Amino acid sequence: MTDVLTVRPSFDQYVWTFGGAAPLARIKPGTVLDVFTEDCFAGRVRSERDLVSEVCEFPFLNPQTGPFYIEGAEPGDTVAVHFVSIEPARDWAASTTVPLFGALTSTHTTATLQPPLPERVWIWALDRARRTCTFTARDNDITVELPMDPMHGTVGVAPPNLEVRSALVPDLHGGNMDTPEMRAGVTCYLGVNVAGALLSFGDGHARQGEGETCGVAVETAMNTIVIVDLIKGRATPWPRIESDTHIMSVGSARPLEDAFRIAQLDLVQWVAAGRGLSEMDAYQLLSQAVESPLANVCDTNYSSVAKVRKAWLPPATSDDSVHARLRAQAAEYRAS
Amino acid sequence: MTDVLTVRPSFDQYVWTFGGAAPLARIKPGTVLDVFTEDCFAGRVRSERDLVSEVCEFPFLNPQTGPFYIEGAEPGDTVAVHFVSIEPARDWAASTTVPLFGALTSTHTTATLQPPLPERVWIWALDRARRTCTFTARDNDITVELPMDPMHGTVGVAPPNLEVRSALVPDLHGGNMDTPEMRAGVTCYLGVNVAGALLSFGDGHARQGEGETCGVAVETAMNTIVIVDLIKGRATPWPRIESDTHIMSVGSARPLEDAFRIAQLDLVQWVAAGRGLSEMDAYQLLSQAVESPLANVCDTNYSSVAKVRKAWLPPATSDDSVHARLRAQAAEYRAS
Amino acid sequence: MTDVLTVRPSFDQYVWTFGGAAPLARIKPGTVLDVFTEDCFAGRVRSERDLVSEVCEFPFLNPQTGPFYIEGAEPGDTVAVHFVSIEPARDWAASTTVPLFGALTSTHTTATLQPPLPERVWIWALDRARRTCTFTARDNDITVELPMDPMHGTVGVAPPNLEVRSALVPDLHGGNMDTPEMRAGVTCYLGVNVAGALLSFGDGHARQGEGETCGVAVETAMNTIVIVDLIKGRATPWPRIESDTHIMSVGSARPLEDAFRIAQLDLVQWVAAGRGLSEMDAYQLLSQAVESPLANVCDTNYSSVAKVRKAWLPPATSDDSVHARLRAQAAEYRAS
Amino acid sequence: MTDVLTVRPSFDQYVWTFGGAAPLARIKPGTVLDVFTEDCFAGRVRSERDLVSEVCEFPFLNPQTGPFYIEGAEPGDTVAVHFVSIEPARDWAASTTVPLFGALTSTHTTATLQPPLPERVWIWALDRARRTCTFTARDNDITVELPMDPMHGTVGVAPPNLEVRSALVPDLHGGNMDTPEMRAGVTCYLGVNVAGALLSFGDGHARQGEGETCGVAVETAMNTIVIVDLIKGRATPWPRIESDTHIMSVGSARPLEDAFRIAQLDLVQWVAAGRGLSEMDAYQLLSQAVESPLANVCDTNYSSVAKVRKAWLPPATSDDSVHARLRAQAAEYRAS
Repeated sequence: MTDVLTVRPSFDQYVWTFGGAAPLARIKPGTVLDVFTEDCFAGRVRSERDLVSEVCEFPFLNPQTGPFYIEGAEPGDTVAVHFVSIEPARDWAASTTVPLFGALTSTHTTATLQPPLPERVWIWALDRARRTCTFTARDNDITVELPMDPMHGTVGVAPPNLEVRSALVPDLHGGNMDTPEMRAGVTCYLGVNVAGALLSFGDGHARQGEGETCGVAVETAMNTIVIVDLIKGRATPWPRIESDTHIMSVGSARPLEDAFRIAQLDLVQWVAAGRGLSEMDAYQLLSQAVESPLANVCDTNYSSVAKVRKAWLPPATSDDSVHARLRAQAAEYRAS
Repeated sequence: MTDVLTVRPSFDQYVWTFGGAAPLARIKPGTVLDVFTEDCFAGRVRSERDLVSEVCEFPFLNPQTGPFYIEGAEPGDTVAVHFVSIEPARDWAASTTVPLFGALTSTHTTATLQPPLPERVWIWALDRARRTCTFTARDNDITVELPMDPMHGTVGVAPPNLEVRSALVPDLHGGNMDTPEMRAGVTCYLGVNVAGALLSFGDGHARQGEGETCGVAVETAMNTIVIVDLIKGRATPWPRIESDTHIMSVGSARPLEDAFRIAQLDLVQWVAAGRGLSEMDAYQLLSQAVESPLANVCDTNYSSVAKVRKAWLPPATSDDSVHARLRAQAAEYRAS
Repeated sequence: MTDVLTVRPSFDQYVWTFGGAAPLARIKPGTVLDVFTEDCFAGRVRSERDLVSEVCEFPFLNPQTGPFYIEGAEPGDTVAVHFVSIEPARDWAASTTVPLFGALTSTHTTATLQPPLPERVWIWALDRARRTCTFTARDNDITVELPMDPMHGTVGVAPPNLEVRSALVPDLHGGNMDTPEMRAGVTCYLGVNVAGALLSFGDGHARQGEGETCGVAVETAMNTIVIVDLIKGRATPWPRIESDTHIMSVGSARPLEDAFRIAQLDLVQWVAAGRGLSEMDAYQLLSQAVESPLANVCDTNYSSVAKVRKAWLPPATSDDSVHARLRAQAAEYRAS
Repeated sequence: MTDVLTVRPSFDQYVWTFGGAAPLARIKPGTVLDVFTEDCFAGRVRSERDLVSEVCEFPFLNPQTGPFYIEGAEPGDTVAVHFVSIEPARDWAASTTVPLFGALTSTHTTATLQPPLPERVWIWALDRARRTCTFTARDNDITVELPMDPMHGTVGVAPPNLEVRSALVPDLHGGNMDTPEMRAGVTCYLGVNVAGALLSFGDGHARQGEGETCGVAVETAMNTIVIVDLIKGRATPWPRIESDTHIMSVGSARPLEDAFRIAQLDLVQWVAAGRGLSEMDAYQLLSQAVESPLANVCDTNYSSVAKVRKAWLPPATSDDSVHARLRAQAAEYRAS
């Protein structure tokens, strides 16, 4: 019988870091979490007049729901987070520019003498029935309807090396990777760095382009259901994602080529270890088969995804059915 | 009535640079070119024993078919190259590692004290009827069949600034961008830098992963048909690609985030200019709508693609039917 | 009358992070600290047989002496740390290679398929009377004597944004900047991010090349005397250093050009604000006058120094005598 | 008896590229060249009203005096250029900002949506007797006098790989390295890539900060005397510089850490080969002894210098007296 934990955090229960916060709850492997996540603005950007620099209170950005202490999780293990469903909790979402943040502006580190770009808010309309999000231009009366494709920008565990990282940072502990691949139906694998793992997630996006160019997606609160499992004795060096059709590695670093290298090397080693290929053969095969969609090119570290279709790989050499099992458990849960 | 030029170059007719070579032929805008392109090894890697460092003669790598002098082309104009068909000319292709070249190795510029990776050749079998390419592992007896997806790694014109660039280099003149998006059915737009533009192309790949991780794709000779057109008075700052469904910009630079920035900014400005949006509104819309598949993370400059579905944009503000017209001309030509 | 605090930490008093640790002591502004700092290996590399991967216990690297809670320090203030003296506490020092760490090797983020470089230890002899350090080659019997130039690789305060950072990381809170400019006679200015600032330092180097190419300097324990002062109401965005002759800014980021940009921009703005120049004029003047010695190109962030001779600047527009005052206090203390 | 060639080029004799130009003269190894070099603006910026974007004619920037065909020079050899004297030919110099060029601005490749910085000219006064250059602020009436330290920003030979590169580009052929180390008294070693080497130089700076932050130094015409020699059978992979006291390697690439890696690795290998050390021992020694002043962080490639005091190295294992011999020849020439 499945444990189900429903969480609707009060404002002071949100956390703003990975590591360094007391657990919100302790859960057993296999638990279903039915949670609410607030948007990255902590819900404070509600109209075109709500500029981030005025309504948000730094560093209280990107609130995370959690952390969840997973019983039995120890360094060297892997947490598996299966996203059963990710549903916008509102019929609107917000996106903005933020001064000195984003890819097409100078920033605090790509530092120039130029003034920042204008600060601006766009409110998007979400139609949950039709699965669309509608853009409304600010400078004339154009609107554009795009498909909704809900995802979580941020999912992670406590980092290694005694560190506490802001929820705005992606690194090997996961965190703010901002990849559109983190959608319902996938399983995210994260290596455990501290006892209990301390899993949190948040930063829902009704949709996001690859690279999150302006630094901010179509940000909204989410009602999300995940199943959290634990794989004992398997280390996961960088975050991995599995869908029904693909496996993916996510590298986060600067410059962007390092994020690319991390993700590609991890996928080469994952495939070599799991599909009976030498590393050189896996390097060759993946060089011809890989998809490399960018995740973010705006955060503290940039994130790059290496992704390959499972049907294009040799058969797995061992029975590695975690995703399939969680997929089945999710179907069962949804049917119940 | 369409001009058709058939070109089967002799070995000494290939060129190894963009710029700096006498035209192979002068053509009128609208000409159909039916050409053969040799593979990037100049055809010298034919078996697993043919190591690049032994059989190839530097700098005679990546032979290009061309250059074609396009009558009437002047700086400030744009050349449109529509790829009617790209068909492997052999039933095999070669891929390799090359010492100190590729993304998962130190290189001549990402210079380390480590010895290079092993040099190795993989011969791929191409089945042109079934549209597949088959990988054969070197270290055990695994084979994997992947879909064929033929493309040209290299297409470009003479560069600006009085320069002559190796055919291994991608930059704003196009060149060795190595994007899988350069497949049959697309139109590539290149800004003209010198009188006649001096268009060349080559470097056929039976398929390639995004990023060309090991530095070398599934390399083969191609029989390729293109229609070359000229758009007078329209400047194109960086290479652009249009398919029936998408428009794309290609940025090439190092570090990789600069290639990303170039491509994203060009797409923002292209969409703003052509779809009636302000730059800030286009920035917002594309941040949510863009796909950002990497092209290469191994060449002299890295290449990043910014790609958006035309159906997700506001209507074009002017009749910009070059791709549609060339598409129609291609259909007519194929029917003839 | 000057407060003097002498600190000889027991092993379990060292801290391994900036932020996240309880104060070792509370001090008043103006206090002289007479402290011992252990080397970056926590003293465990003592011979050529002591490989870091075998004798060190991750993440317990780079022990810091501190943190010191400075009474009255609040966000928006600046801590001034004047280095009165930095003296090796032993007559030997150690340097090493560390697998996948350093500038001339692939690393965990500049990830390649190559095996790591060999792991090796060099023991340097320090002659404190003659002020020399002697290198002894491992692969033949060559020795080389270099001048001793003692410095602290690491000095910092608790970081902003609720974070706790490993002592191996340099960023805007200071930390592991690894610049040879941090020698006796200079004053280091650090912006305060949390109440009490929480100052720590360590990582003594008998000497270090610019860039710390192999990742490890001539590492030794130090007996160090500093005077710690507090400048109320002055914010310092990035670490700054003042010597009798120069002012310097230190930027830490990746890629290295961003570290350079940060340091140069901070120096431009420091000079503009303090010497009556417009930012554009300061940009011009410094472009011709600046020295740009690298600090480290191996740590989590790279560090770049922008340095200008005070005699080459217009006169200061305000009486900014913190360094001069601390210099005088140091002279008095040494005389006492 | 020494050959002396005096060159005062007419405007149409300047060249704007490395490679691709007919020799201005053929010279024998050992020839003394007594030449005039125009400033990087081709002499067109003469007052504060002369904006680069208005008075300069792209791509005709950075005129080079040459190329000189060195008899007997073949690929695999090295050209040695000894700078006997570099003297400003005018009593003024110019510096500017250039739109979208420089380190503290977005650029054509670090592409952002921000408007460029203001375009501005500063005219510097040169006092050749007192060896000073005087800065005059534009926004108030401050002046600052700095020491003159004349240098050539650009010196190079034809590049390899059939390429022709703009004189604005630094790479392994030398070119626009913009290092203040290229002053009178040093010998610059450049590997030969094509028959005759095709040496050119120009881009005189009355002085320059390390990194050339705003993109432009104190630019002036120069009267320069060099002795050009040829070292048969010695390859030089990247530009090297020797002074009476130091040896230096110059790496040029992006990102900046790659320029650093190239220079450091070249210096490690140079020292290992010439001083009887293993590469690992040279890596250790140089990590503690090297100076790493930046050259430029604004050009097409960034340039980083690795520099070590000869007195801090083991004795040379072979008689490598090229610099000493040219130094002596220069003394003799000046005395004659």
